[in-house]
Amino acid sequence: MNWIIAFTILLFWSSATSEAFGQLQLPGDLTAEQATVILKAAEEKASSENILINIAIVDAGANLKSFLRMDGAYLGSIDVAIKKAKTARFFNGSTGELGKITQPGGAIYNIEHSNGGLITFPGGIPIKDQDGTIIGAIGISGGTIEQDHDIAITAAESIL
Amino acid sequence: MNWIIAFTILLFWSSATSEAFGQLQLPGDLTAEQATVILKAAEEKASSENILINIAIVDAGANLKSFLRMDGAYLGSIDVAIKKAKTARFFNGSTGELGKITQPGGAIYNIEHSNGGLITFPGGIPIKDQDGTIIGAIGISGGTIEQDHDIAITAAESIL
Amino acid sequence: MNWIIAFTILLFWSSATSEAFGQLQLPGDLTAEQATVILKAAEEKASSENILINIAIVDAGANLKSFLRMDGAYLGSIDVAIKKAKTARFFNGSTGELGKITQPGGAIYNIEHSNGGLITFPGGIPIKDQDGTIIGAIGISGGTIEQDHDIAITAAESIL
Amino acid sequence: MNWIIAFTILLFWSSATSEAFGQLQLPGDLTAEQATVILKAAEEKASSENILINIAIVDAGANLKSFLRMDGAYLGSIDVAIKKAKTARFFNGSTGELGKITQPGGAIYNIEHSNGGLITFPGGIPIKDQDGTIIGAIGISGGTIEQDHDIAITAAESIL
Repeated sequence: MNWIIAFTILLFWSSATSEAFGQLQLPGDLTAEQATVILKAAEEKASSENILINIAIVDAGANLKSFLRMDGAYLGSIDVAIKKAKTARFFNGSTGELGKITQPGGAIYNIEHSNGGLITFPGGIPIKDQDGTIIGAIGISGGTIEQDHDIAITAAESIL
Repeated sequence: MNWIIAFTILLFWSSATSEAFGQLQLPGDLTAEQATVILKAAEEKASSENILINIAIVDAGANLKSFLRMDGAYLGSIDVAIKKAKTARFFNGSTGELGKITQPGGAIYNIEHSNGGLITFPGGIPIKDQDGTIIGAIGISGGTIEQDHDIAITAAESIL
Repeated sequence: MNWIIAFTILLFWSSATSEAFGQLQLPGDLTAEQATVILKAAEEKASSENILINIAIVDAGANLKSFLRMDGAYLGSIDVAIKKAKTARFFNGSTGELGKITQPGGAIYNIEHSNGGLITFPGGIPIKDQDGTIIGAIGISGGTIEQDHDIAITAAESIL
Repeated sequence: MNWIIAFTILLFWSSATSEAFGQLQLPGDLTAEQATVILKAAEEKASSENILINIAIVDAGANLKSFLRMDGAYLGSIDVAIKKAKTARFFNGSTGELGKITQPGGAIYNIEHSNGGLITFPGGIPIKDQDGTIIGAIGISGGTIEQDHDIAITAAESIL
């Protein structure tokens, strides 16, 4: 009997919550729960490989959703990781791919001067849901660019 | 017969398009079509009342979607209109309501120093869809704060 | 009879309006009506070629006049489009031409550090009136640099 | 027998790790583990009280250590939460206390103009270790200032 009451209260509370807050985030956008899974996947891969990284995750609107700096990771990588995540969502692609055409003589040379600063070397990757919709991006900074890129890929795919 | 072919081609093209681009914007987010309707509603109300305004519209992620400065509208209102729109989405409410508690002694005095600058006097209003989900915001600047606020309300409601 | 009265009132109102506001914008400067024509020309060309772009238009004073982000167009291109338009008016030329001398060793290497950030790859074009007077500029971002440039040219010429 | 070997390898690896990275962070500085405990305490208190918040944690150097935005929490509170945490560590006190002397006529009126923007209303609290040494700070934004402050206090004390 008590369980039924508890369950009814839970349902009511949950619907009250959703009534109060449900419409504040677009359905399908990256959730805090997903961001936590992705962040943990990045941290575990980095730990297992003895790499010290900063991890930044943005949502579909390119706004910061979650962040973690591992102990001893570069202070300068806080902003690099955040800018990698933003850049990956800003242009819906890997920052490393973008960097191939931002070099001197490249098609979009010096695009880094836009958007308050971009980072166009590897380590930023879009986050997609199971339908392929881009719902955010992750930026990793602290290891080599190859390590950062690999960790970003693994982490982004952890929710699929 | 030709109509059937045309229709088939149209369907194919439309599905190719959606395959190529459909997943780049979250379903439910403010569309360019909606933004154009809202902008036009603001411009028409301002014109009919002989008010010269800047109109800025952002999407659910608080990113600029559309903008228009009427001839003769204040140059200084370009940034004010954009910041009003961003502020309204940043805090999911009217900028005028927010401004009531940003005064000296108010609960959030000087919050304008965050987010690269906020505007907390009237003229910014969230844009909601028919379900009440916030899908963006509009900022109006150029008239009196009462005029700006009224135009923003009318324009935001033009898609309901 | 009523038509004559209406027409007289209209004339009077129109002259009152122009008295009140006519002097707030330089004669010959880009009008909102022209900006709307140009923006629509850019949007239509992009749509017909299946390209997703951000469109920014500035007036003779290099101040934002109108803007539109097509659904699904890059979020990072909001600022790139605006900076292309500003850069084109700042230096009265195509951003692509400018980019030829901003490369390492070029005459104006790294001029992108000025003006709060410039963009010096193709997609920004001055807007001229029928007498060849520069009255503003347009910046397009979202397609390849060739596509962006072509759309900017077509759009700028739509008012001639 | 195998256990002894495994244990020896573990000891060696662990000392190699600490040799490689141990000196990159000051002894006693806020760890990622502590930051995670604090962040979780803040999130749980907010959830249980039906409040949607942004949580930002900085270390002794006032540099971002971890961050989380709950689903539906204000986008504008990302920066407010980060600035509250930084402000609390910048001046080693509660942002609410600081705000009492930043009002018009106050001793440090408009100090918010320094450091790229400060926030001086409640919600930022220093994080201390068991000896009372300040090892970082936490900033909460999303609820009322009283709620933000209470959550910050509870969270900061969760590691004691």
